[in-house]
Amino acid sequence: MTKGRLEAFSDGVLAIIITIMVLELKVPHSAELAALKPLLPVFLSYVLSFVYLGIYWNNHHHMFHATKHVTGGILWANLHLLFWLSLFPFATGWMGENHFARTPTAAYGFVLLMAAIAYYILQRTIITSQGRDSLLATAVGSDWKGKLSPVLYFAAIPLSFVTPVLATASYALVALMWLIPDSRIERLLIETKQGAQ
Amino acid sequence: MTKGRLEAFSDGVLAIIITIMVLELKVPHSAELAALKPLLPVFLSYVLSFVYLGIYWNNHHHMFHATKHVTGGILWANLHLLFWLSLFPFATGWMGENHFARTPTAAYGFVLLMAAIAYYILQRTIITSQGRDSLLATAVGSDWKGKLSPVLYFAAIPLSFVTPVLATASYALVALMWLIPDSRIERLLIETKQGAQ
Amino acid sequence: MTKGRLEAFSDGVLAIIITIMVLELKVPHSAELAALKPLLPVFLSYVLSFVYLGIYWNNHHHMFHATKHVTGGILWANLHLLFWLSLFPFATGWMGENHFARTPTAAYGFVLLMAAIAYYILQRTIITSQGRDSLLATAVGSDWKGKLSPVLYFAAIPLSFVTPVLATASYALVALMWLIPDSRIERLLIETKQGAQ
Amino acid sequence: MTKGRLEAFSDGVLAIIITIMVLELKVPHSAELAALKPLLPVFLSYVLSFVYLGIYWNNHHHMFHATKHVTGGILWANLHLLFWLSLFPFATGWMGENHFARTPTAAYGFVLLMAAIAYYILQRTIITSQGRDSLLATAVGSDWKGKLSPVLYFAAIPLSFVTPVLATASYALVALMWLIPDSRIERLLIETKQGAQ
Repeated sequence: MTKGRLEAFSDGVLAIIITIMVLELKVPHSAELAALKPLLPVFLSYVLSFVYLGIYWNNHHHMFHATKHVTGGILWANLHLLFWLSLFPFATGWMGENHFARTPTAAYGFVLLMAAIAYYILQRTIITSQGRDSLLATAVGSDWKGKLSPVLYFAAIPLSFVTPVLATASYALVALMWLIPDSRIERLLIETKQGAQ
Repeated sequence: MTKGRLEAFSDGVLAIIITIMVLELKVPHSAELAALKPLLPVFLSYVLSFVYLGIYWNNHHHMFHATKHVTGGILWANLHLLFWLSLFPFATGWMGENHFARTPTAAYGFVLLMAAIAYYILQRTIITSQGRDSLLATAVGSDWKGKLSPVLYFAAIPLSFVTPVLATASYALVALMWLIPDSRIERLLIETKQGAQ
Repeated sequence: MTKGRLEAFSDGVLAIIITIMVLELKVPHSAELAALKPLLPVFLSYVLSFVYLGIYWNNHHHMFHATKHVTGGILWANLHLLFWLSLFPFATGWMGENHFARTPTAAYGFVLLMAAIAYYILQRTIITSQGRDSLLATAVGSDWKGKLSPVLYFAAIPLSFVTPVLATASYALVALMWLIPDSRIERLLIETKQGAQ
Repeated sequence: MTKGRLEAFSDGVLAIIITIMVLELKVPHSAELAALKPLLPVFLSYVLSFVYLGIYWNNHHHMFHATKHVTGGILWANLHLLFWLSLFPFATGWMGENHFARTPTAAYGFVLLMAAIAYYILQRTIITSQGRDSLLATAVGSDWKGKLSPVLYFAAIPLSFVTPVLATASYALVALMWLIPDSRIERLLIETKQGAQ
């Protein structure tokens, strides 16, 4: 019950964030194809953020699938994650409209970093409450992706001020790394199910 | 559980897309009836897109009703579909505000085409994971509608540059074709239910 | 399952409609209390529409509570109702920003009328599919409210062009009439539950 | 069923309110870090309102967890609460954009006060319908937080006209007071669960 409502609320917030981002793609007044050209960087930054929010929804989904009960601490750690994710439309719009300029690209990296830290805190809060031998704790294991990502974001922030293109490439690379499915949790869940049958 | 959350998230995104499209209908400053006249093309394009999103919600709903379990591939194929649907407000606004001009009408057709392809990919991904003998595979059958639609969109895109009115009529015709309920899946589901009772 | 998804989607659309209406209350640049004065008619029209959408949500909720299975016809009758409700933010904003001027007040009445007709069609579609002896058919009974409301809206539209204040008063009166709970359905549901226990 | 739909609708409205607030953080045209400086008060007021809406979601969640059945009165008391919460984006934007000026800070306090009163009415309506010996009635107990908060808001409103900084500090303090988890309800629920096992 409680878990269902937390998931439903998170789904709602994520669905709205992912959709209002598209409002930054402002309808041009001109009917020429050329009118779409200045929108290209906004579009590209939208695609990047869409993929990131998809990854977060995916991982959030797997993480709570392996969660039994929800505590007050988990509720707030989850809201903390949603807070940073809610800044995606702003960071995406700023970076896109300024054609991946230095400061906005660094700011985007900062929001990515804070969201990654918030996700890590949420994961730790859940594992602490479920116990070290819980399904999630075993499934997460060393979680090299979750540990590598913030390091890469942290490195990309100063890089944004030198070559913003490389910083953006780092953000895209981290996204690609996550797109390869985190088969560990999935495999474990399937095995658990089969074991229960 | 997993399927429920995928459906809830998709419902959320579709509900938001369908509702923010109406924001393109900007409240006029004048209180005269004549102030509504320039909004007419925007309104008509809104009606068309509302019907399209209703069709997608309807079909999505039937498709997942016939789906047993959800894999990582299905999650991403679904997000890919939602991505193209999220561009409906932009494409609708551009076409409507420019009174069905050539390029925006072609761009609308392009978004319709990409969404249709994304839907096809999602359907194939589900069938592959559920097995060729699954309920969905049998229900979908030849799926002439799903195969005809992208062909018609593809033809309408160059047509937009010649006579945009005919292209728009094609979009409306395809929508009408879908409004006639896809009784195959529904009938099969009812028979399956009756068989189970 | 099917019913649950239809309810969830409708809830999503209604929740978004009710919330984006508040965006018409544009944040004033001045920090003076006087800056709120021109917003008063916008605020009043927001309150009226909020109450109306609350009534629709309430009635929708009771109606589907008494619905057993969902057909393709019900899905589309429901989308048709959502379409007219989605025009509430536009109609509310136009009426409010023009301080309840004649034409926008009539347009608001027109949207109310179309939504009432759409609700009636949805109710009939459900009763037809569930059978004349179904719970909903008995509960709805004569449904004088549902029949009186469109008549009052229809009368208020021409009245808007004479004395818009009276037309607005009619809209408020109809809302008040609905706020008195439709105890018939509720009572019947409670009795049915008690009978089942 | 009924309770589930009320919760889902409330979650939807709260998720949208919390997310559209971020739209007040308007993407600056300049790519300089200095462009973020005028956004700082808007950002701070966003953080405050995000925390407040998180608290309301949290408390709403606990309150309905301890609620058995939903009446018409509860539905409307809930909509009344959602109405005042829907004014958060407006009040937040006005206060933030005017750098915590006197009148907007007082207006923010007024919305907080009305939401707190609406919450109290909802709580009373639920307790009345569930009975004085119900789980919620016992859990709520004296509810000093719920009684102290409106008093503090009420005091902060005139204070806003003298030293708005102190009024804002009061709002933040009340939020902090609520962040300390309302362990009473949680503890009682756990005990009840354990008793049932």
